Amino acid sequence: MEYGQSIKIKAPATIANMVCGFDILGFAVAEPYDEMTITLKKEPGISIVHTDDHQLPTEPNDNVAGVALQAMLSELTMPVGFDVIIHKHIKPGSGLGSSAASAAGAVVAANYLLGEVFNKESLVQFAMHGEKLASGVKHADNITPCIYGGITLIRSIFPLDIIPLQPPPLFVTIVHPQIEVKTADARSILKKQVYLKDAIKQWGNIAGLVSGLLQSDYALIGRSLEDVLIEPVRSILIPGFDEIKERSKSVGALGGGISGSGPSVFMLSRSLETAQLVEIQMKAVFQQMNLLHYTYVTTVSSNGVQLFSA
Amino acid sequence: MEYGQSIKIKAPATIANMVCGFDILGFAVAEPYDEMTITLKKEPGISIVHTDDHQLPTEPNDNVAGVALQAMLSELTMPVGFDVIIHKHIKPGSGLGSSAASAAGAVVAANYLLGEVFNKESLVQFAMHGEKLASGVKHADNITPCIYGGITLIRSIFPLDIIPLQPPPLFVTIVHPQIEVKTADARSILKKQVYLKDAIKQWGNIAGLVSGLLQSDYALIGRSLEDVLIEPVRSILIPGFDEIKERSKSVGALGGGISGSGPSVFMLSRSLETAQLVEIQMKAVFQQMNLLHYTYVTTVSSNGVQLFSA
Repeated sequence: MEYGQSIKIKAPATIANMVCGFDILGFAVAEPYDEMTITLKKEPGISIVHTDDHQLPTEPNDNVAGVALQAMLSELTMPVGFDVIIHKHIKPGSGLGSSAASAAGAVVAANYLLGEVFNKESLVQFAMHGEKLASGVKHADNITPCIYGGITLIRSIFPLDIIPLQPPPLFVTIVHPQIEVKTADARSILKKQVYLKDAIKQWGNIAGLVSGLLQSDYALIGRSLEDVLIEPVRSILIPGFDEIKERSKSVGALGGGISGSGPSVFMLSRSLETAQLVEIQMKAVFQQMNLLHYTYVTTVSSNGVQLFSA
Repeated sequence: MEYGQSIKIKAPATIANMVCGFDILGFAVAEPYDEMTITLKKEPGISIVHTDDHQLPTEPNDNVAGVALQAMLSELTMPVGFDVIIHKHIKPGSGLGSSAASAAGAVVAANYLLGEVFNKESLVQFAMHGEKLASGVKHADNITPCIYGGITLIRSIFPLDIIPLQPPPLFVTIVHPQIEVKTADARSILKKQVYLKDAIKQWGNIAGLVSGLLQSDYALIGRSLEDVLIEPVRSILIPGFDEIKERSKSVGALGGGISGSGPSVFMLSRSLETAQLVEIQMKAVFQQMNLLHYTYVTTVSSNGVQLFSA
């Protein structure tokens, strides 16, 4: 541990829920990612600077990285502080784990500077304070893949039980239409109760998806990417959703759905070529609606937050 | 195909649901099993004889093996018939897949005598007619492991999607208390709607269980053997249930629960020694209640219905 030392990190975007795995599955992608530089200070306190133009709060109590770092600092006996510089490429409100990247990136970097005193599970716990600030709920399905990389299963939040799942190569096409879907709103429209018969379908699909991922069975992954509970309700908030799904599958996508609580939509494919064809279809749907949108063609990434010398 | 040819089979007991996998998971055990002898006849018609004293119906329309064979015969153009002799060791009403064993055993044997004209999936479809007769519902979570062996996931019933899961070695202790729980009653007490938050817990556990089985992670299997939806309702029908579970875990069982819709209770263990210690605990609970009971110490078996020359 050395006062004044700095570290740079890249914190990946993450896709929570993975269609049928509401609140339990999530995965990291290679792009987009946030960049941050964190410096360890002897003086207590956290300072946050944004070099992007997203106008996110810089007051630590109001900033997801700030509250995550405060949760970490509350476990330390020595008084230290951090200067945080954030360059955000993952657009806030995109449904791509923007807040998770800030919170996870900050605690991974801080832990490195402190000499790796906390394990990954503790880092998830700290970063979840950021999610609580961002969405009102302490969920871990973006934070966990952002820290662990790859696809992660959160079997349980209380107590936290994280299971990394080793998937076969998967290409990801993402489209982010420029509409606003607040996570809190996306949660509030969900029904508190669901039919048991629908829940059974859902857990059949989840079991199928986990089995397909662990056994590299792409056809099974595709069949299991079905959500009978959440998607029918939430997709109403995303114009063109059904058409994107249909057209993506028609050019070979395995399947996909809403990224987190939206509005981004993602599709999984077996090959880069298919993922690029999917991108064309996604663009076509939003172009005909004159809806501004961003697309990404990327992969499920085994990397979580990555460290670089500053 | 040879008229007059006979074949003997052993059809294993099966344990449906596997705690958190209501309606989607099931597994075959090495013991107990039913024995059947089936003979192919030129004359259409099915005759059924029971050599045990369970007083099950022998009229084919009222017999689970009978209706399963009728479903199969309706797909054939040639007129053939079967003589069926059943020696049932799996007690009807035990929750150990007794009806599934009859139906699955009959169709696997008949298919052999017909020259293997149907695949396993079709055999499951035929045998499900037996389950419909027995319980009013066309469920496949006993039939499938009885035919495939091992642990099977039924991702979907319509269309039927069966995924065999390769587990690590698992020992099974079963206790069958002599009380009656009708499958139809066990279904009717279930709530039609469940809380989304409970459903999420359930599918976290299912994902954990599948992952634990496929990755031979016994600790994860144990943590995932938790049912927050069905067991709290159904276990009320089984006296001593909570005590059995607690005492079994205290001597090292990974976990367990109600077998199918009960009244049998099963526990999984890593070793034969533990499975035997669990048996002692199960016996102690029912002995102190003066409740007649049978126990089995066995294994998850990779064998489904087995054929032997008659």
